[in-house]
Amino acid sequence: MPEHTVSSFDQELKEIGRKVVEMGGLAERLVADGVSSLIKRDGALAQKVVLLDSTVDQMQREIEDRAILVIAKRQPVANDLREIVSAIRIANDLERIGDLAKNVGKRVIAIEGEYHPAKLVRGVEHISDLVLEQLKEVLDAYAARNEAKAVEVWGRDGAIDTMYTSLFRELLTYMMEDPRNISVCTHLLFCAKNIERIGDHATNVAEIVYYMVTGQNLPESRPKADASSETTLAFPGRSAQA
Amino acid sequence: MPEHTVSSFDQELKEIGRKVVEMGGLAERLVADGVSSLIKRDGALAQKVVLLDSTVDQMQREIEDRAILVIAKRQPVANDLREIVSAIRIANDLERIGDLAKNVGKRVIAIEGEYHPAKLVRGVEHISDLVLEQLKEVLDAYAARNEAKAVEVWGRDGAIDTMYTSLFRELLTYMMEDPRNISVCTHLLFCAKNIERIGDHATNVAEIVYYMVTGQNLPESRPKADASSETTLAFPGRSAQA
Repeated sequence: MPEHTVSSFDQELKEIGRKVVEMGGLAERLVADGVSSLIKRDGALAQKVVLLDSTVDQMQREIEDRAILVIAKRQPVANDLREIVSAIRIANDLERIGDLAKNVGKRVIAIEGEYHPAKLVRGVEHISDLVLEQLKEVLDAYAARNEAKAVEVWGRDGAIDTMYTSLFRELLTYMMEDPRNISVCTHLLFCAKNIERIGDHATNVAEIVYYMVTGQNLPESRPKADASSETTLAFPGRSAQA
Repeated sequence: MPEHTVSSFDQELKEIGRKVVEMGGLAERLVADGVSSLIKRDGALAQKVVLLDSTVDQMQREIEDRAILVIAKRQPVANDLREIVSAIRIANDLERIGDLAKNVGKRVIAIEGEYHPAKLVRGVEHISDLVLEQLKEVLDAYAARNEAKAVEVWGRDGAIDTMYTSLFRELLTYMMEDPRNISVCTHLLFCAKNIERIGDHATNVAEIVYYMVTGQNLPESRPKADASSETTLAFPGRSAQA
């Protein structure tokens, strides 16, 4: 299409949607690479993740600017307005996901060369697999405008939170067993928290997709089972509090 | 004013601005109360913070809805558009601040009744004072459309990050000194991180205020000195890595 053609409203909507999908793909890659850099202890890959996050930020700004322009120019209502507002909101969550992946990358760089038994990261690997699956599924749900798929993702967040809570206790246990684990486990706790938060944002995106497609909100009470911020692990010999 | 009067564009803008200020006040209070509940070990206050966060969330949604309506209805340009888009963005940062304050509240509830020497929270109190001051100042800068004040806030974020990095090391040291500190210090580390992140969002707001008033962006490279994610503290006897 020649550049001087004023694109139609539909084309503008599609273009915004296409950019969200593209941004989602990049955010997903950042998460996958961030986790992979942690598991393989690959500082160079972690460094790449840290650098690429600024591209995610740029994409968010671009989507927001474009969406606001379209709102001002076309005064969309109903479905169309929902579509555009959803693009702004999803881009916002994807930007946060990129940020969290970057944080994982930074921690990987921090613990390079530290005392670091392989078993410590196993739990983080586990939760990451689940979160990556959620992220992939919700981006598919967005691309396909599939609200049923969005509901599935939304319903699975509880499993991630439960896994995170048990991982939190596990890492605390490693710290108490051997003080040499304290530094690395602290960073792993933050990594795990970042990854769990990525899962939360995937759930947010699921809610937005559902709203976008149906015009309805999912129930207020999201399945929430992360109790780690209410979890303590007492010093061995004292009873643990849930 | 009778309800049936269609308010003018200027009045709509002012109303959105007023709502942002109101939301800022509430977010500030949540942070102050969250920190206060931590220092006084006041579980009831912490509980209030956790509950009030949903009001902050509602306010964000309201500001966003209203702003988008105004954009669609009035097709604002230049200054006016900047004003409205800035309201959306600031509300977004304030929502995150509320969320982070809520997280502090949850941790306070978690460590109630735990082994918890007073000296452990002193550093967190310190950084909180600084962050609260930043938040207060940046909200004043927004209310007064004072870009110089925004630049001041923006320039001070480095001090918070430096303080956070040293607090991170301090808490790790307490854990290594006495394993009974591990559980509480872990929660305090997350509290400190949440508070440091509130400082980051205050800096974001400063950037938005500057942009709103001047139409210019502050330089890309924000003063960043939080090196804690690159900080490890080796087991005593091994050299610490920066």
